[in-house]
Amino acid sequence: MTSTSRMTSTSRVTRFSLNQWTTRHWPLPDLAEGCVAAGVTGVGLWREPVAEYGLARTGKLMRDHGLTVTSLCRGGFFQEPDALENNRRAIEEAAELGAPSLCLVSGGLPDGSRDLDGARARVADLLAELAPYAGEHGVQLAIEPLHPMYCSDRCVVSTLAQALDLAAPFPAAQVGVMVDTYHLWWDPDAWTGIARAGAEGRISLFQVADWVTPLPEGVLTGRGMLGDGCVELRRFREAVDATGYTGPVEVEIFNDALWAMPGAEALTLTLARYEEHVA
Amino acid sequence: MTSTSRMTSTSRVTRFSLNQWTTRHWPLPDLAEGCVAAGVTGVGLWREPVAEYGLARTGKLMRDHGLTVTSLCRGGFFQEPDALENNRRAIEEAAELGAPSLCLVSGGLPDGSRDLDGARARVADLLAELAPYAGEHGVQLAIEPLHPMYCSDRCVVSTLAQALDLAAPFPAAQVGVMVDTYHLWWDPDAWTGIARAGAEGRISLFQVADWVTPLPEGVLTGRGMLGDGCVELRRFREAVDATGYTGPVEVEIFNDALWAMPGAEALTLTLARYEEHVA
Repeated sequence: MTSTSRMTSTSRVTRFSLNQWTTRHWPLPDLAEGCVAAGVTGVGLWREPVAEYGLARTGKLMRDHGLTVTSLCRGGFFQEPDALENNRRAIEEAAELGAPSLCLVSGGLPDGSRDLDGARARVADLLAELAPYAGEHGVQLAIEPLHPMYCSDRCVVSTLAQALDLAAPFPAAQVGVMVDTYHLWWDPDAWTGIARAGAEGRISLFQVADWVTPLPEGVLTGRGMLGDGCVELRRFREAVDATGYTGPVEVEIFNDALWAMPGAEALTLTLARYEEHVA
Repeated sequence: MTSTSRMTSTSRVTRFSLNQWTTRHWPLPDLAEGCVAAGVTGVGLWREPVAEYGLARTGKLMRDHGLTVTSLCRGGFFQEPDALENNRRAIEEAAELGAPSLCLVSGGLPDGSRDLDGARARVADLLAELAPYAGEHGVQLAIEPLHPMYCSDRCVVSTLAQALDLAAPFPAAQVGVMVDTYHLWWDPDAWTGIARAGAEGRISLFQVADWVTPLPEGVLTGRGMLGDGCVELRRFREAVDATGYTGPVEVEIFNDALWAMPGAEALTLTLARYEEHVA
């Protein structure tokens, strides 16, 4: 263990969770060891690398290292023909991993479609199919509003208010929402939305990343390291906490420069920035 | 005049307006002649090329060709230290050109700032300074909500509702809003916003461009030619018209491929797509 100096504020680190995509190329066993070494106890996992390593094997790896799975990314993509079956499997996987919530990225418009209302209606329809199944498995579906720049190709759910309206017909234990600073920071109604989400008991998870420009081509891998951008990260964390949320603060940053760093180094940087700008 | 075939629906073309940035590299005299040849009577101008050609000279060029200036782009950028003086000049220029409205792109955050609320408050403050001056000049300030992906560096006004809230303290003759499909198409509240804007008499201008992905680096020059993307353009036009709006439909497309075409060819394509997808 190489870095005890940054473990001075253990109570803060216990809320920190490392979303696996932040250190995307870090193999799972190394990630697990690295988290233990850094005093990190929470990890957000992704289905693809979990499947590659093995679902049961991943669960064991997490338990053996005393790590809590804070979320599983991701279900959704409801425009796909096999969405229902695929999301049922995702719910089962989340349950097996002990993840309290399954992150849902709704998906965009079907190829060639301009029917945005239809795509949004389909999200509501599939939620109705999936919510009871999630409840039976002890997993909360976490509808994630994505930044409106992803509306056509990734996620037709674009604001927190819209996500909460979609969640409204279902018990909070079945359907909640993801509060991610990267996607919501611009929204004049973000603060109202967070208060409402908390009051309704629907904050599944709080995720953080910063907003930086210029955006890269395709706008997928340009999320900013905490503190590099213009988001009032601590204000968001305080707003979420003010609703009574006491859950993890998961750092999820898609960034080519970060991905090029060794995993342990990326985690060290992320923890330092988390302390400085979020905790 | 080479193309009478597409002038069959004159009544439709009379609502069409060519925003100058759609044919960005077309010199003003050629643009004026090209519009006359195509039966187009409305043009949206930009301050920089107008200044280059000469303000008075541009006004004369437009009048001599029977062209109406449907808007002047653009004022705003309120984070700049000289914003007040610069916007007063823009109002004067709009008045001299006979443009009924000055497009306002509010500007983003000051360098290094995270104070989004502060930037938005500054927009309100500068509107209060400028609105009476605009009114005296017979020019309506048209607050343009830009897509939230521009919030940090170009425009902290991100939704139509927000633009209307900013406009609310002022008479509609002084402050209105721009309804641009490219910026608003994703918003679940767009239809409510359009109805409200119409009811308040604040629709300064209706602009159209389509949404296509992937977005290019910097996300500035990736607007889609009408019909190439996923926006329900005709539905938007009908919604705006349903409020009683009878003004121009201005086509404003920032697109590298379009800019590489000769001006007359780009206009021909734009008119054909306008007929097919908007009119």
